[in-house]
Amino acid sequence: MDIGSVNYLPYEEFVDVFGNVVEKCPLITAAVWSRRPFSSLADLEASINDFIDALTESGKEGILRVHPDLTGRDLQSGTLTRESREEQVQAGLDTLTTAEVSRMARLNTEYKDHFGFPFVICARMNNKATILRQLEERLRNERTIERACAIDEVKKICHLRLQGLVVPETSNKL
Amino acid sequence: MDIGSVNYLPYEEFVDVFGNVVEKCPLITAAVWSRRPFSSLADLEASINDFIDALTESGKEGILRVHPDLTGRDLQSGTLTRESREEQVQAGLDTLTTAEVSRMARLNTEYKDHFGFPFVICARMNNKATILRQLEERLRNERTIERACAIDEVKKICHLRLQGLVVPETSNKL
Repeated sequence: MDIGSVNYLPYEEFVDVFGNVVEKCPLITAAVWSRRPFSSLADLEASINDFIDALTESGKEGILRVHPDLTGRDLQSGTLTRESREEQVQAGLDTLTTAEVSRMARLNTEYKDHFGFPFVICARMNNKATILRQLEERLRNERTIERACAIDEVKKICHLRLQGLVVPETSNKL
Repeated sequence: MDIGSVNYLPYEEFVDVFGNVVEKCPLITAAVWSRRPFSSLADLEASINDFIDALTESGKEGILRVHPDLTGRDLQSGTLTRESREEQVQAGLDTLTTAEVSRMARLNTEYKDHFGFPFVICARMNNKATILRQLEERLRNERTIERACAIDEVKKICHLRLQGLVVPETSNKL
């Protein structure tokens, strides 16, 4: 789909297509429909990012809290969204050793107890080694810094999900 | 569950229990968890309403756009959330005549084309006759007025859903 076609979508189809570019936050997609027409994919993405940035700090924490744990109960029980499952599998998180699963679970719990939201990272830009390292490092962050860092990861995830849904403007030249 | 127990819920369980008090907006519930402890059910409800009120106008429209059409494709295809299905059935919306279904569909389409969001009404405080009358009346509202009216209905729906989940403070005296 190109951006011209996107601009013609009624809100229901727009939410059907883009409703999970921010995990489990169709409200954001549905809100951003008000900003169409979008001049480009980058413009659509910027509208989503602007909406996120304008939320209160608790609103940003709300976005993080509807994200699944990496290698958590949703991966084990098969209740991840399609997008999250594909991303976690691509990062090799379905092939952890028992010891790695235990370590990830322990660090996830420590992180959630400390910050009150789950560790969010763009899995497709990482692998299990870098994910584990970043989880340990970010646990030491000050809360405000860490919330901003996690929201940056949400935006990276959104960027890649959007790339998979809309033909980028430059792709015709490749 | 009483409000004391609610205050002890980790965010994951809080979102599991209250994630759909605003239809398909777990982000709102997850954000409001930051505001605990809640002194009462009314305090929890006020926190949700404050969060909604603080959203931009497009954010409020986003809330409306993730709501299903009354008697729409989701009721027909069985893809409504449990809460919405029960509310629509309670208002008798699953027993409309063919003529009533056609009239509702025509008015819903007219409403959505006009406002860019679906007609939202607290079905449990209405019946099919009052719903059809209000749909016709509200179609004539100015846009800003109608958006506020629809958001008031979202809050009524949320109020009743919360009542079903938390024991009101006065119920022990009954």
